[in-house]
Amino acid sequence: MSRRRELIVSIGRLESCFKEKFGTPRQPQLAPSSKAKLRIRAEFIPEQSLKGLGEFSHVWLLSYFHLNTNKAFLSTVHPPRLKGKTVGVFASRSPHRPSPIGLSLARLERVEGDTLYLSGVDLVDGTPIIDVKPYLPSYDAASGARAGWTESVEHEAFEVVFEPKAREQLERLAREGRGDLTSLISEVLRQDLRNPRDKSQRAPGKTLEFFVHDWDVFFRVEAGRAIVSAVEPAQEYKKARRPPLEL
Amino acid sequence: MSRRRELIVSIGRLESCFKEKFGTPRQPQLAPSSKAKLRIRAEFIPEQSLKGLGEFSHVWLLSYFHLNTNKAFLSTVHPPRLKGKTVGVFASRSPHRPSPIGLSLARLERVEGDTLYLSGVDLVDGTPIIDVKPYLPSYDAASGARAGWTESVEHEAFEVVFEPKAREQLERLAREGRGDLTSLISEVLRQDLRNPRDKSQRAPGKTLEFFVHDWDVFFRVEAGRAIVSAVEPAQEYKKARRPPLEL
Repeated sequence: MSRRRELIVSIGRLESCFKEKFGTPRQPQLAPSSKAKLRIRAEFIPEQSLKGLGEFSHVWLLSYFHLNTNKAFLSTVHPPRLKGKTVGVFASRSPHRPSPIGLSLARLERVEGDTLYLSGVDLVDGTPIIDVKPYLPSYDAASGARAGWTESVEHEAFEVVFEPKAREQLERLAREGRGDLTSLISEVLRQDLRNPRDKSQRAPGKTLEFFVHDWDVFFRVEAGRAIVSAVEPAQEYKKARRPPLEL
Repeated sequence: MSRRRELIVSIGRLESCFKEKFGTPRQPQLAPSSKAKLRIRAEFIPEQSLKGLGEFSHVWLLSYFHLNTNKAFLSTVHPPRLKGKTVGVFASRSPHRPSPIGLSLARLERVEGDTLYLSGVDLVDGTPIIDVKPYLPSYDAASGARAGWTESVEHEAFEVVFEPKAREQLERLAREGRGDLTSLISEVLRQDLRNPRDKSQRAPGKTLEFFVHDWDVFFRVEAGRAIVSAVEPAQEYKKARRPPLEL
């Protein structure tokens, strides 16, 4: 057996505003208003191991794609933006890869005690983080880089509109000091969340939902617009659908 | 037991021009003339899984720090550039971390069949590569990033000089079409390879050696200069010191 398996460990689980895969941005920085928290486990002595990290503005999060369900290795993937065409898995950032490790650049808002406060994340709540590294602009950025097939895909962005009921709900939340979700929802829905190969999701006028923070957002896609119809407290979701935080 | 261990696999081992830790740059891009090759294992179907990768100019190499020897977790590290001061391990790129995964941005020169030809690497020969991802400038670069403690350290660069014997040897190699090592050796020796805490390495005039490709490079550090005294074929090294390629 030539395939050698190596061990990594979770240093903490991300608490993210994105509660399910559906509604989680496919890349970081697409939703700058997104928030997450990472508490480093006590065994990794955060009062020492985080020393100096707070002076960096960005960090790399190396994560374990714990929600992957397929077991077989697939050598090619269908990036949603390529509409049916395939590329090799190593020419993509698909989560379905031999070592299911994600690489996300996140903004580090601050460090408090054992906890990193982050924004601009593309990771779902509960994701195990296996490493945090400081972003070093001198070594981590390439000038004039060619970005292959990603350069030729169209970046269509939906116009995001809120129906009166949704707008009223969001205004009430903001008034009650429970957060301004309008920016975050707009950033998320600017991208097409739907799976290009899922016909039921793509039926015209079909109402879909996703979860941010403690809220359930209902929307539909019509003629290049994402229309938000309602924002409701996610009571049922929190009870029934949230994956357990500790495996 | 709260610490969950996850599995990753090696998709191939890097064949690098750097044969030992000593002489391997501490970050990528410090030695643009450095070369490496990565052959993807047949079980990962490189003829499909690399499809489209050749159009990218840079890739992330996620590697496993297989040469780490310390077993205990150390929460702080002494970055060589900080001359004795410590920072938390998560504020550093030290190889000694809970999940010993390295992140290196490399230039992708070309893809041929199952093999990636790379330059600007900071990895030692034989390093297991657990993942290759395309570098996406839209998501992998942060503008105006603050780089914490790394911003305040002095970037001293040695002047690199070649004694007549070394220069003649390098000229002969170049004439015989066996490669131009002058640039690579200069890039490597511009940084101080020595461990700040190893007094024997730092004795004045002490001759040190490192290995690039099949050559053994002898040098000493004197008054802010790295002086190359000889470049010899690395016969003994190749027999006795090269770590076995397959674990």
